[in-house]
Amino acid sequence: MAIDYEFISSAAVSSELRRMRSRRPLVQCITNDVVQEITANVLLAAGMSPAMVPAPEEAAEFARGAADALLCNVGTPSEENSRGMVLAAESMNRAGKPWTLDPVGAGGTKWRDDLVSRLIDLHPTVIRGNGSEILACAGFEHSYKGVDSLDSSASALDAAKALAVRSRGVVCVSGEYDFTTDGKTVLATRGGSVMATLVVGTGCSLSALTAGFAAGAENVLVSTAACCQFVKFASEAAARASKGPGSFHDEYLDALYEITPESLARS
Amino acid sequence: MAIDYEFISSAAVSSELRRMRSRRPLVQCITNDVVQEITANVLLAAGMSPAMVPAPEEAAEFARGAADALLCNVGTPSEENSRGMVLAAESMNRAGKPWTLDPVGAGGTKWRDDLVSRLIDLHPTVIRGNGSEILACAGFEHSYKGVDSLDSSASALDAAKALAVRSRGVVCVSGEYDFTTDGKTVLATRGGSVMATLVVGTGCSLSALTAGFAAGAENVLVSTAACCQFVKFASEAAARASKGPGSFHDEYLDALYEITPESLARS
Amino acid sequence: MAIDYEFISSAAVSSELRRMRSRRPLVQCITNDVVQEITANVLLAAGMSPAMVPAPEEAAEFARGAADALLCNVGTPSEENSRGMVLAAESMNRAGKPWTLDPVGAGGTKWRDDLVSRLIDLHPTVIRGNGSEILACAGFEHSYKGVDSLDSSASALDAAKALAVRSRGVVCVSGEYDFTTDGKTVLATRGGSVMATLVVGTGCSLSALTAGFAAGAENVLVSTAACCQFVKFASEAAARASKGPGSFHDEYLDALYEITPESLARS
Repeated sequence: MAIDYEFISSAAVSSELRRMRSRRPLVQCITNDVVQEITANVLLAAGMSPAMVPAPEEAAEFARGAADALLCNVGTPSEENSRGMVLAAESMNRAGKPWTLDPVGAGGTKWRDDLVSRLIDLHPTVIRGNGSEILACAGFEHSYKGVDSLDSSASALDAAKALAVRSRGVVCVSGEYDFTTDGKTVLATRGGSVMATLVVGTGCSLSALTAGFAAGAENVLVSTAACCQFVKFASEAAARASKGPGSFHDEYLDALYEITPESLARS
Repeated sequence: MAIDYEFISSAAVSSELRRMRSRRPLVQCITNDVVQEITANVLLAAGMSPAMVPAPEEAAEFARGAADALLCNVGTPSEENSRGMVLAAESMNRAGKPWTLDPVGAGGTKWRDDLVSRLIDLHPTVIRGNGSEILACAGFEHSYKGVDSLDSSASALDAAKALAVRSRGVVCVSGEYDFTTDGKTVLATRGGSVMATLVVGTGCSLSALTAGFAAGAENVLVSTAACCQFVKFASEAAARASKGPGSFHDEYLDALYEITPESLARS
Repeated sequence: MAIDYEFISSAAVSSELRRMRSRRPLVQCITNDVVQEITANVLLAAGMSPAMVPAPEEAAEFARGAADALLCNVGTPSEENSRGMVLAAESMNRAGKPWTLDPVGAGGTKWRDDLVSRLIDLHPTVIRGNGSEILACAGFEHSYKGVDSLDSSASALDAAKALAVRSRGVVCVSGEYDFTTDGKTVLATRGGSVMATLVVGTGCSLSALTAGFAAGAENVLVSTAACCQFVKFASEAAARASKGPGSFHDEYLDALYEITPESLARS
């Protein structure tokens, strides 16, 4: 397979982390019921400020006001939080602020796919998913088994490019390799740990992090790939220090907190 | 008290764990708002694939399709997820796939008891609860203090047998002893740790595990008792390695991940 | 700034912890979607029994019956759990049982402020929030950035006193110093750890603990300040034993479990 991509540099990752930490972006999250706590804790550990504000009665007002970035994650959609997502995403668009779509379980049921499609049409700044989800979003053939991906990120790269053209934004497909693309350029990151796949919410919270990294970014392609590399380093550090998914969870949060721009620049 | 039961053998526990791991069942969970994350993490650590899909708009489609097993847990019922449970349970029944009911807080309020009763009438493959909950489900006299059981599992054994006859399935009542019965035979397991009662969701996630163990099982009585024994071993290992409920939580997940069929066979 | 307050004594903290533990209060929680699990685990570790019962169909019945205390936390309000809060709070008032309001994010959106105002009018036994939230509740000028406080607890002390007069209860404003007041007397506690601000739910679960400490208390001003000091000791012990927010989370739960009335009396 000939894939035309380049790896993001350590200097760029370090610089993006420094920029994000100095801003401490407030990330409004409309996410699924399973990963609320880990998402908030991942954002806090990494240096962001989370605010879970999904209700349609206030989601748009909050997005217009305090939020620096927004996450829409369709893991456990409901009539209510679907409306909240659409209202908040429209607010962010009007205010010129970034938002990320995480199409959890895309391709799984018709109702979910309709919601995902409606959100893609609102032009998310970033779409982040696993191979199967990105294939499904782009209308390509995909395997499906619940929320686990049976498709590699490389097999979804063409789909990611096509989806970026349709959404007019950046698309990131995660796996052992993460590929981030705007439809033309592809930035890659590699590493991480399979242990992360045994802890619920590591992917969902990565999407939340990409939203925060995009706040104030000069180049969202770079900020997204930098975020992915930062998270892979944290996963690797956590895997070295843990003996199972329970200890990995805590070590991962500690690593997100302990990694500095300086330590990344040396890596 | 003369109770006629036998303990499940280590060989059976080991064999059921091997069978489950080789299948890696996808367990659809419609569970309460408190234990979503620990339930997903327990399933992942043990070797299953979780999918939280409660919405009535998609619960039946998912049950009919990708799910190998289903959990219905009434810990924090809502009009919406109650409808999701009924639709998904009916789907599983039509498809001949197993599902577990966890009647959390049964006997607590009239509304909850009505929902539990409606679900029992749909013939769950397994009902798993603590002593007070099983007594309440069977219409026996019971104590009640929130979600803690004030009744021992042994005091609920007759209720468990009667409930198994009514539900035409397997009933498991948990405590220091777990008793699993189809109304006639009773399989027992013993052990665990009181520390598990200080971590929310250990009981709820045990119910989710019994659903996954039932997927493809030759004998659900055996698969359920084996699951209970596996969990008791993990609790004991976690208790030995921890100094409070915070460290127990992580050690428990690590133990579920680390225990192998081989290590069980030697126990 | 001359603030007229006194610190609560170690003897009082020890005595309140002993009283609470001997009662093991059942605390009904109607709280936000993010902190359900940590709230339940904090209550269990400290020696209480949690029950998350938010649904309007059963919240009042449960409050009237089994509950010893109630928490209403507006972190992620919905039409449904707002109704649950009002119904349960009215039940507690009629039964003469205590309840705590945590006005998370007060001052953030109009919809949320309307709900908070409605709950204050029901005279919560305790209101616990950070500086910005208490200023907002009292109608004072406040900063706002999501759910983090930009105002110190000392700057909100006048607001806390005014709010206590309006609510006819006890108001507790948290920070490096916690101030607890009934509008006249002010009890202070000092310490804790900044690490606690990097773990979601430490503040929310403190509010839940104040509800349980108020159950059967002779003096809610004292029980609330004692609860705050107990939690600060646990935070300090956890911070000493941890290297980041992931390990802090577990050490905090372990410390809540390990601290005894005797160890507090010696502190």
